[in-house]
Amino acid sequence: MRIGFLGLGSMGAPMAANLLRAGYQVNIWNRSTSAIPPLVELGALHCQHPADAAQCDVLISMLADDSVTQQVVVDSGALAALESNALWINMATVSIAFTQQMVALAAAKGFHYLAAPVLGRNNVAAAGQLNILTAGDPQLIARAQPLFDVLGQKTWYFGPQPEQAAVVKLSANFMLGCAIEAMAEASALVRGYQVPAADFLAMITATLFNAPAYKGYGELIAHEKYTPPGFTLRLGLKDIRLAQAAAEGKNVPLPFASVIKDNSIDALAHGEGDLEWAALANVAKRRSNQS
Amino acid sequence: MRIGFLGLGSMGAPMAANLLRAGYQVNIWNRSTSAIPPLVELGALHCQHPADAAQCDVLISMLADDSVTQQVVVDSGALAALESNALWINMATVSIAFTQQMVALAAAKGFHYLAAPVLGRNNVAAAGQLNILTAGDPQLIARAQPLFDVLGQKTWYFGPQPEQAAVVKLSANFMLGCAIEAMAEASALVRGYQVPAADFLAMITATLFNAPAYKGYGELIAHEKYTPPGFTLRLGLKDIRLAQAAAEGKNVPLPFASVIKDNSIDALAHGEGDLEWAALANVAKRRSNQS
Amino acid sequence: MRIGFLGLGSMGAPMAANLLRAGYQVNIWNRSTSAIPPLVELGALHCQHPADAAQCDVLISMLADDSVTQQVVVDSGALAALESNALWINMATVSIAFTQQMVALAAAKGFHYLAAPVLGRNNVAAAGQLNILTAGDPQLIARAQPLFDVLGQKTWYFGPQPEQAAVVKLSANFMLGCAIEAMAEASALVRGYQVPAADFLAMITATLFNAPAYKGYGELIAHEKYTPPGFTLRLGLKDIRLAQAAAEGKNVPLPFASVIKDNSIDALAHGEGDLEWAALANVAKRRSNQS
Amino acid sequence: MRIGFLGLGSMGAPMAANLLRAGYQVNIWNRSTSAIPPLVELGALHCQHPADAAQCDVLISMLADDSVTQQVVVDSGALAALESNALWINMATVSIAFTQQMVALAAAKGFHYLAAPVLGRNNVAAAGQLNILTAGDPQLIARAQPLFDVLGQKTWYFGPQPEQAAVVKLSANFMLGCAIEAMAEASALVRGYQVPAADFLAMITATLFNAPAYKGYGELIAHEKYTPPGFTLRLGLKDIRLAQAAAEGKNVPLPFASVIKDNSIDALAHGEGDLEWAALANVAKRRSNQS
Repeated sequence: MRIGFLGLGSMGAPMAANLLRAGYQVNIWNRSTSAIPPLVELGALHCQHPADAAQCDVLISMLADDSVTQQVVVDSGALAALESNALWINMATVSIAFTQQMVALAAAKGFHYLAAPVLGRNNVAAAGQLNILTAGDPQLIARAQPLFDVLGQKTWYFGPQPEQAAVVKLSANFMLGCAIEAMAEASALVRGYQVPAADFLAMITATLFNAPAYKGYGELIAHEKYTPPGFTLRLGLKDIRLAQAAAEGKNVPLPFASVIKDNSIDALAHGEGDLEWAALANVAKRRSNQS
Repeated sequence: MRIGFLGLGSMGAPMAANLLRAGYQVNIWNRSTSAIPPLVELGALHCQHPADAAQCDVLISMLADDSVTQQVVVDSGALAALESNALWINMATVSIAFTQQMVALAAAKGFHYLAAPVLGRNNVAAAGQLNILTAGDPQLIARAQPLFDVLGQKTWYFGPQPEQAAVVKLSANFMLGCAIEAMAEASALVRGYQVPAADFLAMITATLFNAPAYKGYGELIAHEKYTPPGFTLRLGLKDIRLAQAAAEGKNVPLPFASVIKDNSIDALAHGEGDLEWAALANVAKRRSNQS
Repeated sequence: MRIGFLGLGSMGAPMAANLLRAGYQVNIWNRSTSAIPPLVELGALHCQHPADAAQCDVLISMLADDSVTQQVVVDSGALAALESNALWINMATVSIAFTQQMVALAAAKGFHYLAAPVLGRNNVAAAGQLNILTAGDPQLIARAQPLFDVLGQKTWYFGPQPEQAAVVKLSANFMLGCAIEAMAEASALVRGYQVPAADFLAMITATLFNAPAYKGYGELIAHEKYTPPGFTLRLGLKDIRLAQAAAEGKNVPLPFASVIKDNSIDALAHGEGDLEWAALANVAKRRSNQS
Repeated sequence: MRIGFLGLGSMGAPMAANLLRAGYQVNIWNRSTSAIPPLVELGALHCQHPADAAQCDVLISMLADDSVTQQVVVDSGALAALESNALWINMATVSIAFTQQMVALAAAKGFHYLAAPVLGRNNVAAAGQLNILTAGDPQLIARAQPLFDVLGQKTWYFGPQPEQAAVVKLSANFMLGCAIEAMAEASALVRGYQVPAADFLAMITATLFNAPAYKGYGELIAHEKYTPPGFTLRLGLKDIRLAQAAAEGKNVPLPFASVIKDNSIDALAHGEGDLEWAALANVAKRRSNQS
């Protein structure tokens, strides 16, 4: 089985490396080339064009968003280069609408499509310990399973339509936004009574909320460490909007998403869009006039 | 050191038992008497009146709320019976306003007051593994520490004013409400795409949100198991209102609390007030017209 | 028919004057006495105590709120001085809970109670052109009608329970808050595109929204004229809370009220509580970082 | 001066008729032809294609939305057929983004562009009593003024950028949504106390809120007369989204718009999207479980 891999950023590069180490042949392509040499050293075939990388049985893409995926996989001609019956596994976080377009394209062009976004940051990717959220034809998933086993600790299956994995990933990110906003408001509340937010957050993330999402973001809020950003507030807002769009497609009101959106806009108005997503906590603090 | 213990419900009874097992002399009183015999067997002195139980060095109360605490500890004459320099440790979840009144009363009457609400359900109380959230004069806390060491796994200190522990406890409960509402909305979202909420919640509470708060409530939402209630939606709303009152006292906007309150009222309007708090998830489901 | 009139502030004084001019005998009492002389000149009997003023057939009160009404009418002994079968008409804006307590008190003590809050500022009161919102026993209203005809241009009847007039008045004030917030947000929106808010508000209050509520508050927002206040933001928030309490009593979610409350708290946090209610527009402006 | 007029719906037809009656030569085109004969009778030249109608000095379009305007004016070739220096006046409600695109197109192609959306329904259009909200180069507006004087009672000027008129129109529609939601919530509140919403709305729209926006929508809510729709809830939601998009473009949080959006989605989930916009009141009623 030959694999094509498009998108070698902080997530894609360690994922491709793991596939190479597991013995797979991997064609690689990336817009910037800094990630290329170490992968070539592991045996990757560096392609000059996405369409060359698509000369494979399974094409994996791990790109920034809808628009970059559209450019690199579709507009570049890579998809057109896929052999009939080849499988494209899109592991990025993309919109429901984009997912539906790719499903339609797959039906029209004769290739196969799986959505398989992941949970886990780049160190988790490097350890092959991602959680893989997948949806699509179970036979295709069976075909992809050996690869998922290399990349992740567990594969979660959400149904036969790729959009089902997309909505699960968007819902997970929406819940991260909720966790940040909840900590932001609670921190402002305790601070009103002269309790340092760091004291409150240290306690709450060691007890009721001792989960990765809370520990990570709680630490950043506690120390107001919003730069350099791991994931910007602006990108967080983008994900909230994708969740809202998904919800509107099925008539699901999301009042928490509305609050997060309004507060994120407040943050953007105050020049905080390029800070870490956790800087959303500045909004609750500012509205309470706390220094 | 003689201890008085008022309030022997599902939390108070195992806490008193632990103090007895640790060798303390404990005067006990409770409105209903079903919890009395096993404690007497452990050596407790059963008092006929709260004021009798208050013949002690340290009075601990673990009652339902402001109003029951007011009746049992204040109106009953128990406080008046406290010896000068005695210490009252209030371990219940009460309002900021009530806490401030008790602090004023302590100053006027010459007794000492500590707020020490806890995190943990009754099984945790029985295991002596509570997390104790305390605030007040550090010398008083030093006096209480041996008791806290019996009752809990850890004592967290939030400052010299008892209201600081009260606000931390209210903030923790507010964050629980946020977690429930976040899961409620996300569940409605994935359900819109034919992903069973149980599948989504199983995944998310095993990964990003693998914390007690999420696992417990997530399980209830996944199986829509809202009866018998461990803690009712109506009581959840009451705690949200206490958090709102605390926030308003210091001019802190809490838009997430507003959403939870409005949705809780929707639930009450639909006869769901006496279901488990997690039944808040019915609101997102109903608004999306999901069956 | 002898009338007792308690509360001679900017509304009560012109109302009492109109009753005197219409030929009624009026006993008057007020905490401060500046309003007394001109009314005595019109024939009023100045009483030294509320209970003296209550020697009458119809007692009218026009006091600031629940608590002042409680003090002046109930705690002072005025109610106790009312003859059996006398009628108390409360024309102030009070809570549902207070109204229900007064209804219960009337039943227990043998006097009669009508709620009759009004719409209109003091110039409207002076012109006898108030809109009178009333509810209660129709026979009592028939008894009060000649007085209402002196005080107002129209009497609106909302049902046999006094609380029905109270909720109508609270709903009207809630809608004023909504109008202010709507103009606040729309003003921030147009300002984002360099359209002066004054230009937008002049147009919209001359066309779709050419109503007194919009014209009055629109003018204040347009020129950011928030001092001296006619009615403070703090009092506006108080009315919003009364509307929320009324709604919670019947399980009615009011998400617009929640937004107004959160934004009002933001205003209070920034020291704007004693500005005119329309200063709520500062919140939308500040959140958008507009100068 | 020869005028081209594209879009002869319920608004466009009476507007074109007024121009003809005022003596202007008018080229007309419309997708459906039912509106054509009476206009031809008034002297209009019926064109077979938008591009034919665009043989004129001033092109006026009054089409449903961005996408229809794009199709009929741009994609059809009508714009390309405009003579250099001709003026296009777009009187429809369109997005900020579309407006900006048209401004860029005008600069690129050498024609002139004015935004001039209107306030008023079709009977107002027929009477030549529209309020015309315009923005753009003052010299162009001077050129258009004689036409505006025929079509409307007043022209309101909001600045040199066409997007400034667009945002004013979107803000006006947003305020209509706020008025509907405010009446919806207040109606649910009074109904909770057995006050008929119709009684409350009759009073409030005759007093504080005696403005066209409130009277019209208030009447529909009072009698729950939501069909046939004058303007559907779905289209109302579309306008709210355009206001939100405009606000996000300038980082202006609009929490009232968020509430309206969430409630509109609730309505859509319950099959109410094709009812009159005022049917938004069903949401507050349903959430309160009122029948």
